[in-house]
Amino acid sequence: MDDKLMLMIPGPTPVPERVLQAMAKHPIGHRSADFSAIFAEVTANLKWLHQTENDLLILAASGTGVMEAGIINFLSPGDKVIVGSNGKFGERWAEVTDAYGLNTQRVTSDWGKPLDPELIRVALEADTNKEIKAVIVTHSETSTGVINDLETINKHVKAHGALIIVDTVTSLGACNVPVDAWGLDVVASGSQKGYMIPPGLGFVSVSAKAWEAYKTAKLPRYYFDLGMYRKNAAKDTTPFTPAINLIFAMQSALQMMRKEGLEAIFARHDRHSRATRAAMKALGMPLYAPEGNASPAITAVMPTGVDAEQVRSVMKKKFDIVLAGGQDALKGKIFRIGHLGFVSDRDILTAIAAIEATLLELGAVGVTPGAGVAAAAAVFSGK
Amino acid sequence: MDDKLMLMIPGPTPVPERVLQAMAKHPIGHRSADFSAIFAEVTANLKWLHQTENDLLILAASGTGVMEAGIINFLSPGDKVIVGSNGKFGERWAEVTDAYGLNTQRVTSDWGKPLDPELIRVALEADTNKEIKAVIVTHSETSTGVINDLETINKHVKAHGALIIVDTVTSLGACNVPVDAWGLDVVASGSQKGYMIPPGLGFVSVSAKAWEAYKTAKLPRYYFDLGMYRKNAAKDTTPFTPAINLIFAMQSALQMMRKEGLEAIFARHDRHSRATRAAMKALGMPLYAPEGNASPAITAVMPTGVDAEQVRSVMKKKFDIVLAGGQDALKGKIFRIGHLGFVSDRDILTAIAAIEATLLELGAVGVTPGAGVAAAAAVFSGK
Repeated sequence: MDDKLMLMIPGPTPVPERVLQAMAKHPIGHRSADFSAIFAEVTANLKWLHQTENDLLILAASGTGVMEAGIINFLSPGDKVIVGSNGKFGERWAEVTDAYGLNTQRVTSDWGKPLDPELIRVALEADTNKEIKAVIVTHSETSTGVINDLETINKHVKAHGALIIVDTVTSLGACNVPVDAWGLDVVASGSQKGYMIPPGLGFVSVSAKAWEAYKTAKLPRYYFDLGMYRKNAAKDTTPFTPAINLIFAMQSALQMMRKEGLEAIFARHDRHSRATRAAMKALGMPLYAPEGNASPAITAVMPTGVDAEQVRSVMKKKFDIVLAGGQDALKGKIFRIGHLGFVSDRDILTAIAAIEATLLELGAVGVTPGAGVAAAAAVFSGK
Repeated sequence: MDDKLMLMIPGPTPVPERVLQAMAKHPIGHRSADFSAIFAEVTANLKWLHQTENDLLILAASGTGVMEAGIINFLSPGDKVIVGSNGKFGERWAEVTDAYGLNTQRVTSDWGKPLDPELIRVALEADTNKEIKAVIVTHSETSTGVINDLETINKHVKAHGALIIVDTVTSLGACNVPVDAWGLDVVASGSQKGYMIPPGLGFVSVSAKAWEAYKTAKLPRYYFDLGMYRKNAAKDTTPFTPAINLIFAMQSALQMMRKEGLEAIFARHDRHSRATRAAMKALGMPLYAPEGNASPAITAVMPTGVDAEQVRSVMKKKFDIVLAGGQDALKGKIFRIGHLGFVSDRDILTAIAAIEATLLELGAVGVTPGAGVAAAAAVFSGK
């Protein structure tokens, strides 16, 4: 049905009407006092969301661009780095470090499994000469619905002294990422996720320790030179033309987030993750990520007795609900339910009800219609 | 007056209502057939606007980012390049080539003067060993309102055999840039200019000859790796999340541009440039760019007997019209009238009338009220 699309994917996520309206305003000049006031408010609210006093920089780029910036500003050619890789995005950051001629040590886990913090601890403890300059980790691995144990990994990195550089693209704004309390050096994310606005903006927070490394870092960069963004942010502006209308959108979305409050936002995402998982289990659909490492933003399902792509196809055609498919090695094997950003309890019930109807239509064996919605409702009622 | 702002700056430029509405639609998934269809249409229409069959790639970045991509994909560390520098943006590209360790030879002219194609010819002819790999030129120098003689410069580059890499940020969509007819290798621009949409998207066209250079080019890049964009563009998609809603806006704006037609668009910008210059002369306001090298997009004025910043201030406060100021060395010395993108004859009359009123208020000597509007009207009537 035209104009009935419902996004249940891990980005872009649904955008509130007031945010779309804010974005549709006529642009104003970005070198004006009016724009600087908006930019200052957005920056302050992003710091609130990041729970940090660190510099918080805003770039016109997707999450990948901002994560690249977060890597290349603090390292020099040949520097040794550890990259945690247990999915498409962890692997992407290793591609970035390879592209820049860094000495990359991959610490891997199978897709669908969390990174093992012990492997990182062992690798760091073996580095008695302190040659490892940074550990690069994806917090919520969007491709598999696994959340890595960042808190524990970070403790090992702190004990060693390397920088910790984190992709929080699908965790910031979904679960607790206390940047200052944990001492996270570089934290990168993108706008079309927990931030509830369309893609095109990226965010990165930078610690004092990272700025120390910046002073001697030699990898080339210009548009992604975070030092220039820092200098300009101090004057509430940007070195290059900002994505003005996306900043308008961000202003509106952050006002909504402040009103809801951090605790409520995190609790909502946790509730949706639990409800979705309970529903899938009740429908006999195997979950791809293990208990204890389920992302608050995405639930990945590896169905048996029914084809993952057929589930997505019927969901789209009959109910105008978009689920994500598997990426790379997981193509055709899983479907992913995004519950990130502007998602309500009602949306979860809707998606689960539609998945039930879809499984029925596809003749999936052992599915009890109603069981998924009942399981989600039980989570919502706290019973 | 609230909500009465009128932008007469060289970016962001005014955005048509239908484009704002298109941008405010709910996002759709970027890995969908629906999005690919839009992306294919936008790409095809951008090729039409560039008058090219070359690859046309779309990045989520500002013009600076895309121009950097246009440079670093085709060169290796230590490569010799010529950068034409006669303003803030020409100088910026030399900063980029310096940042990447290229062997940069600047060919300069004073700000406010065009580049001398002869100097570039001489430099290229002296390079008998063909060590110069690229010539990097800004077509319309936004900081000064000067347009460089790209056609002649390009002939010299063609005679030598180096790549020509062009910043067309404020010329594409304003005047004739026949990419294929001239054989321009790399042509970069940004969305908030002649394209009539807000900032956040950049475009770059790449010739077969540039792709040859790409094969052996060794400067590091990942987000800006144009080879990845090319590979994905062949499937009507992008390697990283595109700025979806800006693509919606671009689709709408390009439909308007196709309806108006290339010749009419170029004639409109030429008319506005001539009318604005005639008006400023009639008001005794010295033009900063020389006759014959006036940008079709920006008219820079270096007023005498009245302060440039005061002109801008009164224009903003009394008439809600934003003019641009001078940048860097020209700060406080010039004001710049943008007439780029979604600008009508009426807008030009409005801006000139308001400038007349402003000069009167500021007590500028030798100003004949009405003379500016009369001069512009004469241009419009063709008399």
